[in-house]
Amino acid sequence: MSSLSHIDEHGQPSMVDVSGKSVTTRTAIAEGLVHFPEAVFHQLAEQNFLTKKGAVIQTAIIAGVMAAKKTSDLIPLCHPLALSTCKVDIEPADGFALRVTCLVRCEGKTGVEMEALTGVSAAALTVYDMCKALTHDLVISDIRLVKKTGGKSDIHASR
Amino acid sequence: MSSLSHIDEHGQPSMVDVSGKSVTTRTAIAEGLVHFPEAVFHQLAEQNFLTKKGAVIQTAIIAGVMAAKKTSDLIPLCHPLALSTCKVDIEPADGFALRVTCLVRCEGKTGVEMEALTGVSAAALTVYDMCKALTHDLVISDIRLVKKTGGKSDIHASR
Amino acid sequence: MSSLSHIDEHGQPSMVDVSGKSVTTRTAIAEGLVHFPEAVFHQLAEQNFLTKKGAVIQTAIIAGVMAAKKTSDLIPLCHPLALSTCKVDIEPADGFALRVTCLVRCEGKTGVEMEALTGVSAAALTVYDMCKALTHDLVISDIRLVKKTGGKSDIHASR
Amino acid sequence: MSSLSHIDEHGQPSMVDVSGKSVTTRTAIAEGLVHFPEAVFHQLAEQNFLTKKGAVIQTAIIAGVMAAKKTSDLIPLCHPLALSTCKVDIEPADGFALRVTCLVRCEGKTGVEMEALTGVSAAALTVYDMCKALTHDLVISDIRLVKKTGGKSDIHASR
Amino acid sequence: MSSLSHIDEHGQPSMVDVSGKSVTTRTAIAEGLVHFPEAVFHQLAEQNFLTKKGAVIQTAIIAGVMAAKKTSDLIPLCHPLALSTCKVDIEPADGFALRVTCLVRCEGKTGVEMEALTGVSAAALTVYDMCKALTHDLVISDIRLVKKTGGKSDIHASR
Amino acid sequence: MSSLSHIDEHGQPSMVDVSGKSVTTRTAIAEGLVHFPEAVFHQLAEQNFLTKKGAVIQTAIIAGVMAAKKTSDLIPLCHPLALSTCKVDIEPADGFALRVTCLVRCEGKTGVEMEALTGVSAAALTVYDMCKALTHDLVISDIRLVKKTGGKSDIHASR
Repeated sequence: MSSLSHIDEHGQPSMVDVSGKSVTTRTAIAEGLVHFPEAVFHQLAEQNFLTKKGAVIQTAIIAGVMAAKKTSDLIPLCHPLALSTCKVDIEPADGFALRVTCLVRCEGKTGVEMEALTGVSAAALTVYDMCKALTHDLVISDIRLVKKTGGKSDIHASR
Repeated sequence: MSSLSHIDEHGQPSMVDVSGKSVTTRTAIAEGLVHFPEAVFHQLAEQNFLTKKGAVIQTAIIAGVMAAKKTSDLIPLCHPLALSTCKVDIEPADGFALRVTCLVRCEGKTGVEMEALTGVSAAALTVYDMCKALTHDLVISDIRLVKKTGGKSDIHASR
Repeated sequence: MSSLSHIDEHGQPSMVDVSGKSVTTRTAIAEGLVHFPEAVFHQLAEQNFLTKKGAVIQTAIIAGVMAAKKTSDLIPLCHPLALSTCKVDIEPADGFALRVTCLVRCEGKTGVEMEALTGVSAAALTVYDMCKALTHDLVISDIRLVKKTGGKSDIHASR
Repeated sequence: MSSLSHIDEHGQPSMVDVSGKSVTTRTAIAEGLVHFPEAVFHQLAEQNFLTKKGAVIQTAIIAGVMAAKKTSDLIPLCHPLALSTCKVDIEPADGFALRVTCLVRCEGKTGVEMEALTGVSAAALTVYDMCKALTHDLVISDIRLVKKTGGKSDIHASR
Repeated sequence: MSSLSHIDEHGQPSMVDVSGKSVTTRTAIAEGLVHFPEAVFHQLAEQNFLTKKGAVIQTAIIAGVMAAKKTSDLIPLCHPLALSTCKVDIEPADGFALRVTCLVRCEGKTGVEMEALTGVSAAALTVYDMCKALTHDLVISDIRLVKKTGGKSDIHASR
Repeated sequence: MSSLSHIDEHGQPSMVDVSGKSVTTRTAIAEGLVHFPEAVFHQLAEQNFLTKKGAVIQTAIIAGVMAAKKTSDLIPLCHPLALSTCKVDIEPADGFALRVTCLVRCEGKTGVEMEALTGVSAAALTVYDMCKALTHDLVISDIRLVKKTGGKSDIHASR
C-alpha cells in the first residue's frame, strides 16, 4: 500500500489522475542558490555581470522561463499545464552567491511546484554555464519550495 | 574586455565558436543530493522505495538520461552534442539523502559538464516529484562537477 | 467532397476546428503486442525481465507516458491537449508476447485516442530497443483502439 | 516606467500574468510572402510544384501547423496555448511570389497572433528549403498580422 | 549477469557506451502495415486518398521523417544521431492495407534500426489519425526490421 | 524528372541523402528586418530598448540561437546538425527598423543556410512579441541569405 501518489498498487510509475479535481488558481515559488568562489564573485561584480541588465542574468532568466514551460517534457509524470505566468528573478545573496527565484501561476487542477523548481534549476544551470570559463568551482544548492497556494494545503516555508 | 566566453565584446550572449577545436573523448561526472526529513527517509526505506529496483529510482534515472540528451535545448548557449553514453546512478547517502551521480561521455569539440549537471538536476527534480506526496520539505543541494577529462585542463574535485 | 475531417475542400491537410465543441471528460484505451521468439521470451522470463519491477518494463512505461504527452508534437494535425492522466501497463500475453495497454483521460473538446495509441507505440518501441541485443526478430503488432468514451459516439472493441 | 508588457519595472524580461483575464474565443490571421526570381517561378509552375497538391506546398503547410503548435517553445515569453485549430494556406501571388496565410483559433486568455505569425514563418522557411536547390535568391517578406479578434481591441489590417 | 545491453549489472536502465565503436555507414529499413475495413479501403481508393499525391500519404510521410529525427527524444536509451537521410514510403498492400516503409542512413557508431522503426510507427499513427473520421476499426501491425547493414552483423529479413 | 532535391521521382517529399558528401566547415549568414511605425521606433529608442543591453534585444538574441539549434525539428526535411557556433546580432537600421543578422557555422556534410534563416526568423518574431503591446503595425521583411561558404558553390549576396 503505497503512500506515493506516483506509484500504483503494483509498484509501477503512474501519473496521478486529476480528472476529478477542481480548477483553482495555483501559485508556487521556488528558489535556489549558485555559490561562487569569493574571488570570482568579486571579479564578476567588478565587470558588472551581476547586475540585472547583464547578459549572464538575462540569459539565465530566459532559460528559466522556457524550462518551466517544458516541465512536463522533463519530469516524466508531470501533467502538461498552461501556465498563466512565470517570473524568474536573480540577485546577489550572502556568501558570494546568486539567489534564483521562480514564481509560477496557473489555473488548473494540479499544483505548479515542479514548474517553479524546474525554472530555478534551469536558470541556475545557465548561470553555471555562462560563468564556467572562470571556474568550475561552482555549486548549485538549496533548491526548495518557498510557497505554494491554491491546492488542498498551502505551504509557506520559513527562510 | 570580458573574461566570460559566452559574452561577446558588446556584452551580448554568444555561443563559443568551437570550429577550430579538436575532437577528443570528453567525460564529465556531476553529482547532487536530495535531502529528506528523517522520518520520511525511514518511511521510504521501509517501503523499499530507496532500492535500485524501485519506481522512484528507476523513473529518476530515465528522466536524468533523457534530460542530459536535451541539454542544448535547455541551456541557451550549449552546443548540441551526440553523446556516446550517459549513466545516472542514485543511492542513499549520509544525512537522510539520496545522492544522484551522472556520467556523460562524448567524442566532440567541447566538454560535457553541462550535460552531466543537467542529468543530475532532472533526476533530482524527478525524485522530488515522486516523493512530494509525502512532504514538500525536500531540498536539492550540492549539485557540482566531480570530474572532467578530455579538454584543455582536467578537473578532479575532492569530495 | 471529402469524408476525411483532416482534409479540406481543396484536398489539403487541415486541423479540425474544435472551437464549437463542448468540453467533456474523454477517455481512450489502446493496446498492442510485442512478439518475441519463444526461446528469447523464456530467457527474458528466467532472468526476471518480464516482471513489473524490471527495468525493461519500467523504462517502457515511462517512455509511453512521456510520448503520450507529446502526441501533438508527433502527429501533425493533432490538437495539443492537457492530459488529466496517462497510465501504461505491460504484461505477458499469449504467444510469447508482451501486451502494452495505455489509458489516457482528458477534459477537453476532442478525443484522446491518438494519445493512447501513441503511448502504446512508444512503449512497444522501447521494449524493442531494450531487448534488441538478444534478437532483432521482434514484431510490434495489433496496435488498436480498445475503448473510447466521452465523444459523440463511444467505442468498445471486442477483444 | 516601461510601456512594454514583457519587460518588468527593473528592465528584465517577464511573461505577462494572464491569470485575471477572461477566456474568450481568439482568432488571428497572419500572412507573408516568399519571392522567387521570375525564371524560377515559371519553372516551378511548369513542373506543377505550385499547385496545392504538390509536395512543396503540402510539406510547408504541415511545417506551418506544427510550428504554430510549438510557438511557446520558440518565443521565450509566449504562453503555452491549446489551439482549437490552425489552418495554413499557400497560393501564388503577384510578383512571382507565394503567399502564406495562417489562421489560428483558441479559447484562452491571451491572443494567438504570435502563433499565426510563427506558422507563417515556418511555412515560408520550408518553401525556401524545398526550393533552394534551384536558387538561393529567395526572399521572405511582409510577414504581418492581418486580423485579430477576441481580445481587448480587434485588428483588421488593410491589405 | 544480464544479456541485455541496456541494463547494467544492478538491473538498472543504462545507455550503451559507444565511445570505442568505429564510425561506419549504417542503414536500416523497417516496415509496418495499417489495416482498413474493406469498405473503407475502397472508399479511400475511390476518393484518390491512397495515391502518393494525396494529403493522407504526404502528411504521414512528413510525420515519419520528423519522428525518425527525434527518436532519441522518444526512446529513453537511444543515442542522439545525425541522420544522413530518412525516406518514408507508403503504398497499398494486400489485404486492404497500407504498407509503410522507412529507410534511415547514418554515419555513426550505432545502428539506426530504432530510427527506422520509429519513422514507421509515426507515419502509421498519422495515417490512423487522418482516416479515423471514417472508422476507428483500424489496426497497425507487423512493425518489424527488414534490413540492417553497417554494424557487427547484418540482417536481411525474409518477407 | 524533378529539379528539386527534396522531392523524389514520385513527387513525394524526401530528405537528401548526404552520406556520400564530404565534411567541410560550412558557414552561412542570413539577415532580416523588423519594421516599426516611426513614432513607436522613437519611443523605443528614447526608452533605451534598442540598445544591445536592453531586454528586447537580449531576449531576441537568445530566441534566435535556440531556434537555430532546433531547425531540423521545425523544417521537415532538414538534417540534424551539430552547430559549431551560432551568433545573432540585432541593431538599428535605416527606415525605423531593426536588422537581425544570424551567423551559423558547422563541420558537416550539408549547408547551414536554413539554420541561419531560422535564427533570423525566431529572433524577429521575438522582437515582434516583445513590442506588440505598443503596436501590431510591425512587419518582418527581407529575410534572405547573405553569405554561404563551404559547399559546392559559395554565395555572397550584394546588399
